[in-house]
Amino acid sequence: MRKIKVSAEEQLKELKRGTVDIIPEDELLKKLKKSYEEDKPLIVKFGADPSRPDIHLGHTVILQKLKLLQDFGHEVHFLIGDFTARIGDPSGKSKTRPILTDQEVIENAKTYSQQVAKVLDMEKTKVDFNNDWLGELSPIDMIKIMAKVTISSVLERDDFTKRFKAQEAIYMHEFAYPLMQGYDSVAMDADLELGGTDQTFNLLMGRHLQKAFDKEPQCILTMPILEGTDGVQKMSKSLENYISLEDTPSDMFGKMMSISDDLMLKYYELLCRRSAEEVSELIGEIKSGKKHPMDAKKELAVEIVNYYHPEGTGEEERKKFEDRFAKNKIPDDILTVDVESGEFKVLDFFRDMEFIKSNGEGRRLIKQNAFKLDGKACKEETLDLKSGSEHILKLGKLRMAKIVVK
Amino acid sequence: MRKIKVSAEEQLKELKRGTVDIIPEDELLKKLKKSYEEDKPLIVKFGADPSRPDIHLGHTVILQKLKLLQDFGHEVHFLIGDFTARIGDPSGKSKTRPILTDQEVIENAKTYSQQVAKVLDMEKTKVDFNNDWLGELSPIDMIKIMAKVTISSVLERDDFTKRFKAQEAIYMHEFAYPLMQGYDSVAMDADLELGGTDQTFNLLMGRHLQKAFDKEPQCILTMPILEGTDGVQKMSKSLENYISLEDTPSDMFGKMMSISDDLMLKYYELLCRRSAEEVSELIGEIKSGKKHPMDAKKELAVEIVNYYHPEGTGEEERKKFEDRFAKNKIPDDILTVDVESGEFKVLDFFRDMEFIKSNGEGRRLIKQNAFKLDGKACKEETLDLKSGSEHILKLGKLRMAKIVVK
Repeated sequence: MRKIKVSAEEQLKELKRGTVDIIPEDELLKKLKKSYEEDKPLIVKFGADPSRPDIHLGHTVILQKLKLLQDFGHEVHFLIGDFTARIGDPSGKSKTRPILTDQEVIENAKTYSQQVAKVLDMEKTKVDFNNDWLGELSPIDMIKIMAKVTISSVLERDDFTKRFKAQEAIYMHEFAYPLMQGYDSVAMDADLELGGTDQTFNLLMGRHLQKAFDKEPQCILTMPILEGTDGVQKMSKSLENYISLEDTPSDMFGKMMSISDDLMLKYYELLCRRSAEEVSELIGEIKSGKKHPMDAKKELAVEIVNYYHPEGTGEEERKKFEDRFAKNKIPDDILTVDVESGEFKVLDFFRDMEFIKSNGEGRRLIKQNAFKLDGKACKEETLDLKSGSEHILKLGKLRMAKIVVK
Repeated sequence: MRKIKVSAEEQLKELKRGTVDIIPEDELLKKLKKSYEEDKPLIVKFGADPSRPDIHLGHTVILQKLKLLQDFGHEVHFLIGDFTARIGDPSGKSKTRPILTDQEVIENAKTYSQQVAKVLDMEKTKVDFNNDWLGELSPIDMIKIMAKVTISSVLERDDFTKRFKAQEAIYMHEFAYPLMQGYDSVAMDADLELGGTDQTFNLLMGRHLQKAFDKEPQCILTMPILEGTDGVQKMSKSLENYISLEDTPSDMFGKMMSISDDLMLKYYELLCRRSAEEVSELIGEIKSGKKHPMDAKKELAVEIVNYYHPEGTGEEERKKFEDRFAKNKIPDDILTVDVESGEFKVLDFFRDMEFIKSNGEGRRLIKQNAFKLDGKACKEETLDLKSGSEHILKLGKLRMAKIVVK
């Protein structure tokens, strides 16, 4: 049975969706064609930082691309950078690069594997540790690798350029690390390496070193950095704008529904598992107004919850969400207030509840039929309440209270 | 019996002669004092390039300082940089750094030892090979060394600064080499390293890395670069301005006598083996006119020839030199010309011999009594030569010919 079942052109079409760069695209197509003709999987490299094993949706942007490559029949190598992890930052300047023990590296790798298993097919995933080859290099090998790279080419890396211009200290080993990462591609005979756009420099270093060591150079494929739920900054645990793969279905759905319509379009592009064609069609429908953004957002939330939780959980969460916010049904945990029977001044009550800031605002909302008493629009500013009765008062979609009349 | 016999202050006085820098001098004095008090020799490092084993007088500037340190009882380590020699220049950009085989390294080291034995006491000299420790480093060790040094500090090295500004490629391993050399000092526990002023950066790197690895840092002592016999450029085999230790006594003496008076003063400072006090006194005498520069030059030439050839050879060469150029005695290898008997036109002959350019020049010289016939001043422009006779014709001190009359 063939391993590579899909034509090179079709593979490329799906791979391209959402990418920032494929360098060079024609070379990747050639590799895919050869792989298809010879039915020989490409070796796909993805480097993982072994010190931070908390995976969120931001990471899945690339993981899904890797899964796609697995589905096409290629060989995904998940590379744990334990060589540098075992060293840490010997200059002691960087706190983000602690020294890890062998045991910690193994533990982290295990956690990592468990987490990426939510996206990748782990039976088809090879986990490599770069200390296996980097740790075996002789000093002469190291010198030979360094002899392939100029100082100014490394200085071109964005962060180095900035620090150099600001006259901040850059230590020699920091220059050596991208070389070591690049040498991984030489050792692995990688055909393709994936990474975020912030990794472009390092990925190209792999390509450069392969050429320098007379190997067929890898292609590189970069993906955008996914913004967090705030729509502004990179999704990151420390910024609390992240959706963890470990989030409860309810949190995951809720966080998905909280994003802006613009961000949703990006999430569709980068997180949705449907084919490139379907996704682009759907985005067209949203933009043209044919599909309501709220519906589209719910669809994506359902899809994502279903993927990381048992099938059907997404639909359950959608129902709960709609019950709470969209329909008129009353959630169980509604704000409940005891009131006296008799004359009840609606505007005073809304101000006490901080639903409105002024009577003027309340009157405007009442005029707009935004005030609902027991599910029905109400124009009255004063109610006559009977002892022992209960009513649901609602202003707009979100401001809601139950009053229990004594 | 004590090993260190001379007081620290006296040692420092002699060591200082002709140096460009001692960094830091107070620290060296402290080391010398401690060494004297504990009667424990200092470890003195001198790095030799193993690829070019042709030693000339330029090299002896430092070798003599090392000899002085040996005479004071210190332990001189002659370091053969075979680690880098075994690598060569892997980028292939530098032709001056060929890859040497183990065999070549050993051969060169042997030749080197034989040559430096003309200055150093080889029984007291330890020959080290840095591949013994550099070759054993793990990649992690390499990273740890690199973590002690910033990119900008290495860029400060003169040649790197120039190339960086000129946007010429500098390869990473070129930056690594001074670190490796510096690490030699860590591995050797060097107390003092000697080098030419062109090595100051590398010597300081040794000091820096020793501190970084919590070792007592070495002091450094730099010597000026000796100009060649042209008095302009660094003494170098390729520039043909060098005096080799392998030169014949006659070549050595002749080359020494060819240098300018100014250069002679430098040579006295850097090459003469007498005490600092004697040398400074002698230089004073020359400058004040108390001693004739020609006599001083001969004295130095005698001393140097005697040092590299059997004692007394210098005096012999001096005698030959004086016979040939200063006195009127006729050297054996004089230019001999057969002429016809009868009328002999002196000016025509001098022009044929290219002793003079014009008859005018010849007449002037004859008027000045510069023309000597058989050792006696002669004013005649035409001679009457008898068949079978021989005569010595001399114009000034250097232009001389024997004529044999047919």
